Amino acid sequence: MTGHERLWAELGLDVPLHNRLLESLGADFQAKVESRKNRPRGMAYFDRVIHAAHGDRVAELVKGRAEGRKIVGTFCIYVPEEICLALDLVPLPLCGGTDFSVPYAENIFPRDICPLVKSTLGLAFSKTCPYAPIKSLAVGETTCDAKKKTWEILSERVPFQVMEVPNKKNARTGALWLAEVREFLARMEEVAERTVSADRLKSAIRLMNRKRAALQEFARLRAAERPPISGLDALVVYQGMLNDEPLRFTENLERLNRELESRIAGKVSPFPAGVRRLMVSGCPAVMGNWKIHSIIESCGGAVVADETCTGSRYFENLVDESAGDVDGMVAALAERYLKVDCSCFTPNDERLRSVESMVDRHGIDGVVQYVLQFCHTYNIEAIRVEKTLKAKGIPQIKIETDYSREDSGQITTRIEAFLEKLGSA
Amino acid sequence: MTGHERLWAELGLDVPLHNRLLESLGADFQAKVESRKNRPRGMAYFDRVIHAAHGDRVAELVKGRAEGRKIVGTFCIYVPEEICLALDLVPLPLCGGTDFSVPYAENIFPRDICPLVKSTLGLAFSKTCPYAPIKSLAVGETTCDAKKKTWEILSERVPFQVMEVPNKKNARTGALWLAEVREFLARMEEVAERTVSADRLKSAIRLMNRKRAALQEFARLRAAERPPISGLDALVVYQGMLNDEPLRFTENLERLNRELESRIAGKVSPFPAGVRRLMVSGCPAVMGNWKIHSIIESCGGAVVADETCTGSRYFENLVDESAGDVDGMVAALAERYLKVDCSCFTPNDERLRSVESMVDRHGIDGVVQYVLQFCHTYNIEAIRVEKTLKAKGIPQIKIETDYSREDSGQITTRIEAFLEKLGSA
Repeated sequence: MTGHERLWAELGLDVPLHNRLLESLGADFQAKVESRKNRPRGMAYFDRVIHAAHGDRVAELVKGRAEGRKIVGTFCIYVPEEICLALDLVPLPLCGGTDFSVPYAENIFPRDICPLVKSTLGLAFSKTCPYAPIKSLAVGETTCDAKKKTWEILSERVPFQVMEVPNKKNARTGALWLAEVREFLARMEEVAERTVSADRLKSAIRLMNRKRAALQEFARLRAAERPPISGLDALVVYQGMLNDEPLRFTENLERLNRELESRIAGKVSPFPAGVRRLMVSGCPAVMGNWKIHSIIESCGGAVVADETCTGSRYFENLVDESAGDVDGMVAALAERYLKVDCSCFTPNDERLRSVESMVDRHGIDGVVQYVLQFCHTYNIEAIRVEKTLKAKGIPQIKIETDYSREDSGQITTRIEAFLEKLGSA
Repeated sequence: MTGHERLWAELGLDVPLHNRLLESLGADFQAKVESRKNRPRGMAYFDRVIHAAHGDRVAELVKGRAEGRKIVGTFCIYVPEEICLALDLVPLPLCGGTDFSVPYAENIFPRDICPLVKSTLGLAFSKTCPYAPIKSLAVGETTCDAKKKTWEILSERVPFQVMEVPNKKNARTGALWLAEVREFLARMEEVAERTVSADRLKSAIRLMNRKRAALQEFARLRAAERPPISGLDALVVYQGMLNDEPLRFTENLERLNRELESRIAGKVSPFPAGVRRLMVSGCPAVMGNWKIHSIIESCGGAVVADETCTGSRYFENLVDESAGDVDGMVAALAERYLKVDCSCFTPNDERLRSVESMVDRHGIDGVVQYVLQFCHTYNIEAIRVEKTLKAKGIPQIKIETDYSREDSGQITTRIEAFLEKLGSA
């Protein structure tokens, strides 16, 4: 047994099955990401974040927990991380990106719900999620039908806090959301067994603003005229942002940004000049899921922007730092998080404006609307996104898919045809 | 051209296509419902409600509209009808129950959303919904992902009011819902071009309470030891409750209830003694959709209760009549409607208690969980319903299906096996 295997066994994981999961993920990551040429040197750190996710990162969290740093599992970028950080809790997104675990969910849950939810549940049910046994509490939200009903089943096994994300955005629902954030703070204080101080909350807001600002700069740099980094590498960075320790992540990202600046100056790019510039828009591609980016870039396109929860939606808004007291900061947090333009809102015109702005800002030639199968909200909102893009003369293609490899050939054919339609520069 | 055809042409319907729709619906209704033996005489009225839905009822509504009685389209029993009635508006559920119109929706909307939503949209898009052109406004709600995102597309064609039905039930969301009901009242007053009076609102509440009380009595009578009426006939009554003029419907239902009492006294039943007593639980079966009830009763089971929106969920709670002013009555309405135990809520323990209570009250031998395909909330909630029933020793089967005939054979086989498992009395 390796050190990690001992750790997993102690956590009650199914070690042989977990080893098979890691082999499968590792091979996929190697084939799709690590084997690619002309990657920035700074990507070595972010590759390690992926590799460490089930190993060193878990060991680090277990050590932190022994020192009193509890872990809060989350499933959505709507959960205000700053509040956890200010209380020395570790917010940790638990969304699954691997097909490996899906069958274990389908034993209990319907097959026709989205692969992200099924993958997440399957990891927990098959004892291959190292975070499941070490979290003190999970935080759900009401952003989609499948998730909100899933919390009811999971809350029979683990303490749960469900935040009501409203359906419409107005003064009334803004007040409701603020109350939900306050309740979340109170629950987190209970879990942490301490109350939050203004100083700690201010520091956490500053840290997360610094992190999001670095991600904004990264988004700008990756979309340079000669993109200095592939969309797959950018996705790896985005997947890391949801798992890694925030300060360490930010410092490494700031370093990568400097490297990207010098690559831009030196016209160093993994893509040939005149490559078609695509934006992936819609559903998240969480750790383990490199499918759509891999297909697009294997077909010769460049993903230069991600209008997703593993992309702009996570970092496009900062928290106002002017408030000095906890109440004011909590209000600023609630305001920032309610700006997230998830398709769970009706209407969601903010997202259409964001898509337009990103297309302009990043010089996008075409948009791939990425819809996880059975995700009704992004699937139906795709109609309005298509209309918005049509009005701008930007071609788009909607790819609705799950995590399996079965439709990869068919998607490749469709993406090839789409790139052909976009023509060369 | 018949008189009705002239009417449809005037409304801009596609008359030949609409005739084909009516032929198809009529043949299905005849085969599944009207051809059955030993039906109560009083069903003649409710059969006519079905037949009149696209003809005489439309003519009546068009006449009313000419007299100033505007029509408000709805898609959910969460819309407070009393407010419309008090303002002399006609609330009219527009949900589609026919497979005929589904392909017309699939031209624009994703295929993998629920058949009810697709059928509704398809009727409008194919110009075969006579209500679409005569309604002044449509009222949507946020009870599921597919519907809430659909309103955004439909609101480009027709004035829309979307009510935020919250995701959790607590004091905060209760206050939000009350504010939504108040906003709904204000919008309805605008549409009606008048303000509501306490007297009119009280009358509307009394009328709807009388209607719901008659439906409660009907639910009790149909579940007598020897059921005096089939589940298919009961479904026809329930489908009528959503379309027919409320006073006329109520008077006819009260008459039917008297007939059922005398049938019970005389042991007149469409079923043999000892028939297995089933409850259909879950999704609604709106006008045009007799599929699951027809299969169950063709296999020899008796549907004696419907724990659905076309069943108990519509009538199980009355509005408190003690308030004397408009504000108090609006609060009582909001309170009553928030009691509806739709699977859109998380958690939704009220529904589990309701299922238990109905099983006991109606002497249920087995439950058919009826899930419309891609309805995530009922589909996932089925796990908890199954668990609840298991604890009571009540067998259940989950049938997930759409409106097509393709799976009828397979469902028949499963229902036959389920009835066999229940054994004979």
